[in-house]
Amino acid sequence: MAVYTEVSDEDLEAFVADYDIGAVLSFKGIAEGVENTNYLMQTEQGQFILTLYEKRVLPQDLPYFLNLMEFLAEAGIPCPTPLHAEDGKALRELCGRPAAIVTFLNGMWPKKIHATHCAELGTALARLHTAGAGFDMSRPNGLTLEAWRPLFNESAERADEILPGLAEILSRELDYLEANWPERLPVGICHADLFPDNVFFLGQSLSGLIDFYFACNDFLIYDLAICLNAWCFERDNSFNITKAKRMLSAYRKERDVSEAEIAALPVIARGAALRFLLTRLYDWLNHPEGALVKPKDPREYLSILQFHQQVAAPGEYGLD
Amino acid sequence: MAVYTEVSDEDLEAFVADYDIGAVLSFKGIAEGVENTNYLMQTEQGQFILTLYEKRVLPQDLPYFLNLMEFLAEAGIPCPTPLHAEDGKALRELCGRPAAIVTFLNGMWPKKIHATHCAELGTALARLHTAGAGFDMSRPNGLTLEAWRPLFNESAERADEILPGLAEILSRELDYLEANWPERLPVGICHADLFPDNVFFLGQSLSGLIDFYFACNDFLIYDLAICLNAWCFERDNSFNITKAKRMLSAYRKERDVSEAEIAALPVIARGAALRFLLTRLYDWLNHPEGALVKPKDPREYLSILQFHQQVAAPGEYGLD
Repeated sequence: MAVYTEVSDEDLEAFVADYDIGAVLSFKGIAEGVENTNYLMQTEQGQFILTLYEKRVLPQDLPYFLNLMEFLAEAGIPCPTPLHAEDGKALRELCGRPAAIVTFLNGMWPKKIHATHCAELGTALARLHTAGAGFDMSRPNGLTLEAWRPLFNESAERADEILPGLAEILSRELDYLEANWPERLPVGICHADLFPDNVFFLGQSLSGLIDFYFACNDFLIYDLAICLNAWCFERDNSFNITKAKRMLSAYRKERDVSEAEIAALPVIARGAALRFLLTRLYDWLNHPEGALVKPKDPREYLSILQFHQQVAAPGEYGLD
Repeated sequence: MAVYTEVSDEDLEAFVADYDIGAVLSFKGIAEGVENTNYLMQTEQGQFILTLYEKRVLPQDLPYFLNLMEFLAEAGIPCPTPLHAEDGKALRELCGRPAAIVTFLNGMWPKKIHATHCAELGTALARLHTAGAGFDMSRPNGLTLEAWRPLFNESAERADEILPGLAEILSRELDYLEANWPERLPVGICHADLFPDNVFFLGQSLSGLIDFYFACNDFLIYDLAICLNAWCFERDNSFNITKAKRMLSAYRKERDVSEAEIAALPVIARGAALRFLLTRLYDWLNHPEGALVKPKDPREYLSILQFHQQVAAPGEYGLD
């Protein structure tokens, strides 16, 4: 829920004049999205999203993100594709910030998750992973194993403010993951943030994947584990095996998942849970007073982590 | 900047099915607007705004606001018009809140005000006032003279936190306004909140007036004074007489302003400044920690008030 940067009429007009999309007819800040400033823009040629990249996205990563979206869109993945201005560039500058215009996707993100959503997502994720194999840029995951302990250290002293004993739980989990994290699994392009608010549906059909600003090269099964965590736990934090089954089997119909990946799923799912637990913990402890964006409760991901800690075998996720 | 109420897919679908606008293709919370929850909704029939009315709007006032918009739109004023559902009703309920769908207006609100904007606004406001004469419902202004002292009393003790001496300045101004507020001036439908973010332009032309949720019956010149305060002072709080001249002369071309109204303009402008100074002061002192909406600085309106206090004659506003 965030419009951080207000764009003046003059700046907008000058910026849009460099694209072949006609004059702007309306321009409204979108409340969703927490990292960047997003405007829904209607021009004589249709609807577009204009994004200004705020502090949390590193400018040097933007060519990777924008090129990836363009590559995936061309490969038939339903994701926004950046427009090129007359100078050929997709990444430009507006109000002193990196900025881009991308195509608009119809659809709404699901507020209530049904098993059919999970099946659709499994299919779309596998197709993204398969298509991504042809993309020739690479970006390491800035929020994987090596990053977790330094991130934890920044919150360690105050973690018990959230829940007594939390620091000890996190420290032990880091020990476990550092000792057991797989070294060799199939890698490729991961979205790495496919939460429901980044996935659009029209009726029962998936119509769009958005927000590629955490995309990176990492274990593909890690991306699937992020989705499992984000889509297959209920509001009371119980695991819904029906949803997981639908997601996993739909995914496996589109991409062959190796035995090694399946065997690694429990530890990978723990890591995927810890990653969001650590960033939420940090944001919870460090969000400025009066911030526009309300931080998410880290305890939700503690509960998910604890579920995975007691999983004895991958079959418990509903894998056949 | 506010989406207070999240609408589930099921609720949205059921709500929209009662209108003749086709299926929903996209649905995005709008960051602008501070009183209600607004979604920009694309359906098979076009773009619409879906509004859920939050606490600050009294449900009993909604028929006045919605009927007024419909009346004015039919009279050719460029304002949103409420859609009627199949049951004939424009005011309905969604997520336990009063809700309505209104037509979408193209245009952007001007972030930087030019004199041409002021001229366009003067014309549109006079037309609104003239058209409003035929509207047969009435709503007293809840934020006029009688309301100001009780409102001040709620902030009086802490007013000096904003600026030492502020409570004394406000108390004296209330004394002055209570002694000098006119009793008889032409009354009619006032928008009563025509700040730049409620006025859309396409290029140089005014294309829309929105947000009628402070509309009321009051002195028409009071509505004009609100606009003078909101549009004709620069960011450094200096008065721009060129803008005021353009606004006032454009207004007077469309509606005859009486001698009494002109003579009253300085005191009315003081009242119009005090009204926003008092609500901003209250909001500044009482906004909850971490609120989504950042309160506006009350001192801007103190400076505007102090300008009007030293006006010796209406001619100083640029009236011929």
